[in-house]
Amino acid sequence: MNLKDINKKITKGDFSSLLNFGNNNKNVHPNEVAKMLSAVPTETALEAFSSLPITTQTKVFPYLDKLLQKKIVKTITKTRATYILNELSSDDRIAYYSSLKGVERSTYLDLLDEKNKDAVHDILGYPDNSVARLINTEFATINPKITIAEAIEHLRKNHRDTETANVIYVVDNDGKLIDDIPVRRFVLNDPQKKITEILDGSYITLKMTDTKEDAVAKFKEYDRIVLPVTNEDNILLGVLTVDDVLDAAEQRDTKEIQNFGGVEGLDYPYVKTTFFSLIKKRATWLIVLFVGEMLTATAMGYFDAEISKAVVLALFVPLIISSGGNSGSQAATLIIRAMALKELTIKDWWFVMRREILSGLTLGLILGTIGFIRIAIWQNLHLYNYGEYWFLLALTIFFSLIGIVMWGTLSGSMIPIILKKFKLDPATSSAPLVATLVDVTGLVIYFTIAAIILKGTIL
Amino acid sequence: MNLKDINKKITKGDFSSLLNFGNNNKNVHPNEVAKMLSAVPTETALEAFSSLPITTQTKVFPYLDKLLQKKIVKTITKTRATYILNELSSDDRIAYYSSLKGVERSTYLDLLDEKNKDAVHDILGYPDNSVARLINTEFATINPKITIAEAIEHLRKNHRDTETANVIYVVDNDGKLIDDIPVRRFVLNDPQKKITEILDGSYITLKMTDTKEDAVAKFKEYDRIVLPVTNEDNILLGVLTVDDVLDAAEQRDTKEIQNFGGVEGLDYPYVKTTFFSLIKKRATWLIVLFVGEMLTATAMGYFDAEISKAVVLALFVPLIISSGGNSGSQAATLIIRAMALKELTIKDWWFVMRREILSGLTLGLILGTIGFIRIAIWQNLHLYNYGEYWFLLALTIFFSLIGIVMWGTLSGSMIPIILKKFKLDPATSSAPLVATLVDVTGLVIYFTIAAIILKGTIL
Repeated sequence: MNLKDINKKITKGDFSSLLNFGNNNKNVHPNEVAKMLSAVPTETALEAFSSLPITTQTKVFPYLDKLLQKKIVKTITKTRATYILNELSSDDRIAYYSSLKGVERSTYLDLLDEKNKDAVHDILGYPDNSVARLINTEFATINPKITIAEAIEHLRKNHRDTETANVIYVVDNDGKLIDDIPVRRFVLNDPQKKITEILDGSYITLKMTDTKEDAVAKFKEYDRIVLPVTNEDNILLGVLTVDDVLDAAEQRDTKEIQNFGGVEGLDYPYVKTTFFSLIKKRATWLIVLFVGEMLTATAMGYFDAEISKAVVLALFVPLIISSGGNSGSQAATLIIRAMALKELTIKDWWFVMRREILSGLTLGLILGTIGFIRIAIWQNLHLYNYGEYWFLLALTIFFSLIGIVMWGTLSGSMIPIILKKFKLDPATSSAPLVATLVDVTGLVIYFTIAAIILKGTIL
Repeated sequence: MNLKDINKKITKGDFSSLLNFGNNNKNVHPNEVAKMLSAVPTETALEAFSSLPITTQTKVFPYLDKLLQKKIVKTITKTRATYILNELSSDDRIAYYSSLKGVERSTYLDLLDEKNKDAVHDILGYPDNSVARLINTEFATINPKITIAEAIEHLRKNHRDTETANVIYVVDNDGKLIDDIPVRRFVLNDPQKKITEILDGSYITLKMTDTKEDAVAKFKEYDRIVLPVTNEDNILLGVLTVDDVLDAAEQRDTKEIQNFGGVEGLDYPYVKTTFFSLIKKRATWLIVLFVGEMLTATAMGYFDAEISKAVVLALFVPLIISSGGNSGSQAATLIIRAMALKELTIKDWWFVMRREILSGLTLGLILGTIGFIRIAIWQNLHLYNYGEYWFLLALTIFFSLIGIVMWGTLSGSMIPIILKKFKLDPATSSAPLVATLVDVTGLVIYFTIAAIILKGTIL
């Protein structure tokens, strides 16, 4: 029976196939079951999950999305919930409790046995964005003085067959990290060798308080699949595998992309986010931007005399301000991303500034020239009549575009750096600030240049 | 001696410490050497690299950025280049040749021995974005009929101590994949067991032609650290490790973010991109957007009679069109990201459309109300005089905002889906299309509503 058929049966309330599927079929990854449960309506998914044997439930649980996890724990019996939550691997357990808040968190913490409860409690004390929140506290340690054969014997007795046994940690009697050994080295070397003989003396660690971004950067730099996490005394507290970091990197990027589009980062995927929460996330920034942009009406108000004398000036307002906005958002994107990937730091501001002023000038010249040519062509082909002073108007557009694109580029590149300097997240706050600033000042630049060039003619 | 001191020495042209460092100091990861070389001027880096022993050069080479790699191969002797390029691990070799073009590629291909040359040649035949470009063709295989002890013996004789030995592949006599076994299972089980006894019958594969995005999704779904890559006949051709995918995911996101900001994806990090190439990448889109936005001047031209009669209408143009643009870019961001993460497909268009029309209406009502109140307050506190028909003007703004935000939201959500339908990349082309469309049509909506409401008063 293939997945589609099973899916159909589940939707019809027939969970027998799922039962077989989760129970007997060794070939199936628990994620396949999780995917099927996500594809059917929540009520059906809850029923189907309840029909699974508890060992399958425990395997499938970590692969479910956080919303479904919450509902399941609320639905199943307390005994089952206690079993599942205690049996989860420590990183999956932390991920579940991280998604709970307040009373809910403390209620379900009480289901854990003392050891697990203390461990979860400790880790939840670290910031949301810290490596601590991702670590697995089950790991395999050995003493450096034994032989490979003895180490293998020790592992066989004390360690389960989980991914945390891919790398073995050599620690001293105080639990301080000496080195890490990929388990393959036990296989590839003579079992009579001492552990000390197969150490390469090279290991990379993370601290509990490092951010998830730090972890992503370290994994990329050193090509590791798992890194040990230690405290200040170099005592090994947990391990972090790269696949968990892959999620963290993707979440970071999703947040960054959404912030860029002027949306507060969503907590759940778009399709799972409720309508109300979607509106809330969008309305916040939309209102902030709207209120900021109201300044454009105020700015235009100052120039209403000029506009009534020369209506033609108003025609180019959208073109002028959108050019400022576009060049500003280009610069902001490049700088924010480079800072997120740690290619740039605040210290590079002078390098960035020089470069962006020059870029702004070049890009402004290009757009200004196109704008000038546009007016000249429309005028001379009689597509629109800009009046007898069309040449001066074209010059106004030319110089305004240079000024505004330079200003957009400069603000777009500097605002993220300044925000970072003040410990604010550049991704969250740059877009609205750049947009508002560039639009409002763009209008001032445009009408000021117009006043200078067109004075005594149409103004 | 710490890294900073060594760095200082290198900059002064004293490479002795680097020599010791790369040569004797087992504790140091090759990436540390690479980072130091990247931190000094290119000329110094080339000199310093040349002074390293060839074994260190080979280890450090993969960690250097592509620009420096190219320059190094051009600078060092042909013998050295031949040695290094042949000794690289197959994925690093492919990465190097992928960055070369045309004549340069074929010149340096000639440095490889026949086997490597053929392998590189084969893989370069696959698309840039395919999994094939990332695979490592060195992997460890065993026959299912032997015992664990025999398998260990086989690996010791035939396999180097590299990360590709973390997972062992069980293949039949034709090279067809039967299962994969993490090497830890050899250690955790009785050596007298047959391989068939420790198989779990569950493996996930990638195809050579799968995209890098497919690979990212699979690694995330199945929590694996390495996946086998096979052809259509299930013959094992290579393996892909998750850390290489981490790079791929980050590159994809960087491209997406840059496209969003209206910049063509950069080939190198911002700081390494030359000024000229930076301008080229930015000017292209900036010009496209500018030419598109010129339509706003045309659209405004059609309403110049209205504007000269009621200059006050012009004051709200920036506010009105930026609201359309912002709501459009919110919607586009959410949809594009959800499609990139495979949470949404083209088939969901109807779900998205209903949802976004409703969101647009709600958000439009919110902004419209704020806009209305803004005018009422300014008028009644005498901050600006909108004239005797200020109430009708406020109504115009109210209805225009509802219309434009709904339109922005709808276009922002549908354009990415339509582009995807026509096999175009939604991330690349959505931003400019949405911006231009919403700005131009926004003006038309605004002036049309104004004409209806204000006819016979100020118009």
